Amino acid sequence: MCELLGMSTDAPTDICFSFAGLMQRGGATGPHADGWGIVFYEGKGVRSFHDPEPSSNSQVAKLIREYPIRAKMVIGHIRQANSGRVCLENTHPFVRELWGHNWVFAHNGQLEGIKKYPLGKYTPIGTTDSEYAFCWLMHKIDSSFDGPPKNPKKLYVKLKEWCDELNQMGVFNMLFSNSFCTFAYCSTKLCWLTRRPPFSTATLNDVDVSVDFKLKDTQVTNGTIIATEALTDDEEWTQMKVEEFLVFKEGEIVFKQE
Amino acid sequence: MCELLGMSTDAPTDICFSFAGLMQRGGATGPHADGWGIVFYEGKGVRSFHDPEPSSNSQVAKLIREYPIRAKMVIGHIRQANSGRVCLENTHPFVRELWGHNWVFAHNGQLEGIKKYPLGKYTPIGTTDSEYAFCWLMHKIDSSFDGPPKNPKKLYVKLKEWCDELNQMGVFNMLFSNSFCTFAYCSTKLCWLTRRPPFSTATLNDVDVSVDFKLKDTQVTNGTIIATEALTDDEEWTQMKVEEFLVFKEGEIVFKQE
Repeated sequence: MCELLGMSTDAPTDICFSFAGLMQRGGATGPHADGWGIVFYEGKGVRSFHDPEPSSNSQVAKLIREYPIRAKMVIGHIRQANSGRVCLENTHPFVRELWGHNWVFAHNGQLEGIKKYPLGKYTPIGTTDSEYAFCWLMHKIDSSFDGPPKNPKKLYVKLKEWCDELNQMGVFNMLFSNSFCTFAYCSTKLCWLTRRPPFSTATLNDVDVSVDFKLKDTQVTNGTIIATEALTDDEEWTQMKVEEFLVFKEGEIVFKQE
Repeated sequence: MCELLGMSTDAPTDICFSFAGLMQRGGATGPHADGWGIVFYEGKGVRSFHDPEPSSNSQVAKLIREYPIRAKMVIGHIRQANSGRVCLENTHPFVRELWGHNWVFAHNGQLEGIKKYPLGKYTPIGTTDSEYAFCWLMHKIDSSFDGPPKNPKKLYVKLKEWCDELNQMGVFNMLFSNSFCTFAYCSTKLCWLTRRPPFSTATLNDVDVSVDFKLKDTQVTNGTIIATEALTDDEEWTQMKVEEFLVFKEGEIVFKQE
């Protein structure tokens, strides 16, 4: 199973902390050695790093650890290939443009029969179930709305429906963003934690050290991390329920549907 | 004026050499300090790095110099902002998907009135003339063909027409790729050089050292570099003509129209 990681905060911050934990798992302490990727939103732009290499050996991962990139939204993924060969184009997160915004998608699970679904203007570049599901979701959004709905809840409600439909095909844990908020859908395993100042140190699950939580340097008052599994031992993570759909904006839950 | 850099070879190789020259210009020896970006094709996937920072100070540029990425096609760009503010989403090259392939675009110049042109399914994320022109080109391709034409020359001929049309609006030096070949259009300034084995050392224009040409380590028999200006003093670069359109595939010119 792949590992998902998301961050949503109300001020640009550095995700090195949690990312270090995830990176460590991708080869050194876990089976997730078939590629990893991370996308940072910076304004309307995205900075994306993908590597089909085991993440604990990756030069690009080393860069990201040493060179903190500040962002309000981040989606990361470590992959264990169970659909599609190990190569760059099969490495999550996937990015497409709609309505002049970058949409970013990462998935953990398998979807039986997804490739029979009709697609619209988005075509997968790689061969994974996940990118196919992403293209299908983008097609559904594109064909159901003329543009960003004035009331964003209309989009959230439809997304929840489409996620439920995908979830019927297998396992569909997902992080997805439209560059304004982060959509999280739990099929089997996804949890989240909101940190607020004062930020203390926390112990990583995978790395045998305590580190300062970098958010303390910034103006962040709500810093939310969403991950497949709790990344720290000494904090209270909230497990998402099966088929629960959450929307995080600036570190806070703005929509919730079970 | 911005600087363009492209590479097209018949085997994956390391572009550190020419890229080092371009990076050096972006702040240290030239006025191009408003962002840079580079996209490497790796199979069907792309690895893209963008930085709105002056490139000679950039941590990401440092990474790319120290960590050679092997590719058969590369498009790079250093920007001097003359349309659109300095930010990540305005930083070339721009990437979009069509027909399940990554299309990558970088432009040097200005285009007066381009934003009145109608667009289709591609919407600019940033505010530059260049990205708008790219979205317009993608729209023209998408709406003129049902899919990749069996005879790719049909696409090349149309592209040349559309480039001529854009060139009427100002200055349109361009590098563009559909993940199979590199399209180069010269409005005012673009030149190219093909290197073949045995590869010798060459002197950089901007950096006061000679370095080994990395292509020598690989199976490359045709290594073509396309750049705004000659990057080396001791080799014969071919200047492109005004309104000349070239298509490079695996380091060779496969189509040419003036």
